[in-house]
Amino acid sequence: MAAEISPLAPARFPDLPPIAGVRIATAEAGIRYQGRTDVLLMVFDPGTTVAGVFTKSRCPSAAVDWCRDVVPGGEARALVVNSGNANAFTGKRGREATQLTAELAARAVGCGEREILLASTGVIGEPLDAGRFRGVLDDIATKVSPDGWPMAARAIMTTDTFPKGATARVDLDGTTITICGIAKGAGMIAPDMATMLAFVATDAPIAAPLLQQLLSEATETSFNCVTVDGDTSTSDTLLAFATGAAGGRVMHDAEDARARVFAAALQDVLNDLAQQVARDGEGATKFVTVRVTGAESALSARKIALSIANSPLVKTAIAGEDANWGRVVMAVGKAGEPADRDRLAIWFGPIRVAVAGERDAAYDETATSAYMRAQDIEIRVDLGLGAGEARVWTCDLTAGYIAINADYRS
Amino acid sequence: MAAEISPLAPARFPDLPPIAGVRIATAEAGIRYQGRTDVLLMVFDPGTTVAGVFTKSRCPSAAVDWCRDVVPGGEARALVVNSGNANAFTGKRGREATQLTAELAARAVGCGEREILLASTGVIGEPLDAGRFRGVLDDIATKVSPDGWPMAARAIMTTDTFPKGATARVDLDGTTITICGIAKGAGMIAPDMATMLAFVATDAPIAAPLLQQLLSEATETSFNCVTVDGDTSTSDTLLAFATGAAGGRVMHDAEDARARVFAAALQDVLNDLAQQVARDGEGATKFVTVRVTGAESALSARKIALSIANSPLVKTAIAGEDANWGRVVMAVGKAGEPADRDRLAIWFGPIRVAVAGERDAAYDETATSAYMRAQDIEIRVDLGLGAGEARVWTCDLTAGYIAINADYRS
Repeated sequence: MAAEISPLAPARFPDLPPIAGVRIATAEAGIRYQGRTDVLLMVFDPGTTVAGVFTKSRCPSAAVDWCRDVVPGGEARALVVNSGNANAFTGKRGREATQLTAELAARAVGCGEREILLASTGVIGEPLDAGRFRGVLDDIATKVSPDGWPMAARAIMTTDTFPKGATARVDLDGTTITICGIAKGAGMIAPDMATMLAFVATDAPIAAPLLQQLLSEATETSFNCVTVDGDTSTSDTLLAFATGAAGGRVMHDAEDARARVFAAALQDVLNDLAQQVARDGEGATKFVTVRVTGAESALSARKIALSIANSPLVKTAIAGEDANWGRVVMAVGKAGEPADRDRLAIWFGPIRVAVAGERDAAYDETATSAYMRAQDIEIRVDLGLGAGEARVWTCDLTAGYIAINADYRS
Repeated sequence: MAAEISPLAPARFPDLPPIAGVRIATAEAGIRYQGRTDVLLMVFDPGTTVAGVFTKSRCPSAAVDWCRDVVPGGEARALVVNSGNANAFTGKRGREATQLTAELAARAVGCGEREILLASTGVIGEPLDAGRFRGVLDDIATKVSPDGWPMAARAIMTTDTFPKGATARVDLDGTTITICGIAKGAGMIAPDMATMLAFVATDAPIAAPLLQQLLSEATETSFNCVTVDGDTSTSDTLLAFATGAAGGRVMHDAEDARARVFAAALQDVLNDLAQQVARDGEGATKFVTVRVTGAESALSARKIALSIANSPLVKTAIAGEDANWGRVVMAVGKAGEPADRDRLAIWFGPIRVAVAGERDAAYDETATSAYMRAQDIEIRVDLGLGAGEARVWTCDLTAGYIAINADYRS
């Protein structure tokens, strides 16, 4: 598990300031790992609202089922996350484990069970012994502090090679509010060790229904536009918590000018975290942005962008620093969306390599090869059909991915 | 390009007998390769019927466009295939190249242009110089022979590590008929060098509309149920030719008892060829059969089977000989088809590893690990919902795939 830090990692973990109304602690429960933290507890002041977005998997984990059940209540007092065991595909015992964890956390924090949010990541199919949390949660509930973001980001890691954090600060009508977020995940992706989890907290005052609306919208172009291998975890979970401790009128309406400012800042934080997930893609050596323009609709553009971003042949070509636009044409063609071969244009970075259904007459292989040696690569496809646009982030596919995933248990 | 022969290859190329009414020749046109054949000409006696199934890509090659245009005519006198250049994404020049090739072939064989079928495989986006065929086709049209199947299978190869052939012989009401087929392809798959092409010929007497119906049906469970990497070529082409030279009444009706016998034999040939494509999957070390039962419908079963067969995480686990059923659950979940986690059961070969939404109590890791060391692996998933079934063939995903596809131009 001592993988080297991704070459695409940011230089350092950003400074995440405290959020009024949020306190954090981590612990070593020894669920799977030794000598590292594997439990995160976040405690929220009374009145904190919550929203969530979850995996679309038809086989979700027990923790996802729990959150889907309690999030509509709109109130949160604590979040418990463990790494090392996903509590997924664990049947009745999995449901019992979430119930026991919520009970233990509610008692430790002094709130109702249904104000507890849960997330688990790690191996699938192994029963989670929630009894391990018994002493641990009582203990760390007394040690929570506002300054725990870096520790929190580390405690939830599995195959991640670096902790992921992002923050934004904006002025809402004279009140400064802060958003902090952490994420883990090295893909969309593996149910074993690389589920995507993200937790965002803010001191902005937002009613739960509006928080849910803004979170769902911001997810569409951030976490729902990042892919490593096209595989979807049983446990993907994004939760947002708003303590309201910054003060000011509670926002209820997305048309509220303050809500628009907040939504933009939330989008920045989610975009930053989502990009970090792609930058930590298993075995990644290139960060790739795929832009599709001129599609019949935004949905069509996204399907085509994901078809390109998930194509093993496109991803291996990028790993090989090969401006193989033929494979891009292939991926456009297989998406099944409206496309006219003879109107397609394709760019690698600033270089147009194909236009009107054939190689660009001005194509310069040397310049293109030089571009492909960069660490950050952009592929753009214009379909010439309409105004639909999309942007997806991904990474290349290397022998490192195979090594991590083929040799993982050995 | 001197890849080692796949460890999953059959021991030898089968004995493909002559088909009355079919003559074959190959040549070296030097399109891309040196020192090997790269053009195949098959000449058919007058009265030969034709049917075809083509890529579903929205960006098909010029040769696919040509075939889609002429196949409905139902008559074929010759097939010209070249390897080394796919004549795909070549715009107007691509259409001119197919037109010129058909003209040259029609003159060489002495028939109409629209009785010529074409297929091209190789690099994409490079103009195909059809002028190279000028002398070549005139020359080899005089050298065709009934015994050319092994040569034909070799002339169409690109990244294939072995030539692929299959044959069947059945009795239709006292008349023995023969089917021979060849294929190339090391995936579904790459538009550069690994397009899937397959050509089948028979001396059975079949009207073109019935041949089309039987070919389309047999493709559904053969070539449309094989996947290497989920990528779809711009050029995938399957053509069937029926000379009728074996004699007997011409079959028109799928309910005809003879048509049913023929259809079963055609299915055997296509299944055999499709399995060989998976066995030659780029970098493959394991041949994998994915069976899904108990789905709500056959279509739903196939989508789930393909989701499993195309999952990079499932494929890398198999490469690592890891009975990682958690990844199978993930792939079922991401397919988006009806599934109930708590009714799922999963087998690796004869061993049931999970049942009723959790690990099988009788699960034996040692026995399962021993099973995973086999070269041919079967994964079965029962959804417990209905009677829908599907079976898909694939291969594992190894560092060899990355090496072939990332280092291909370097």
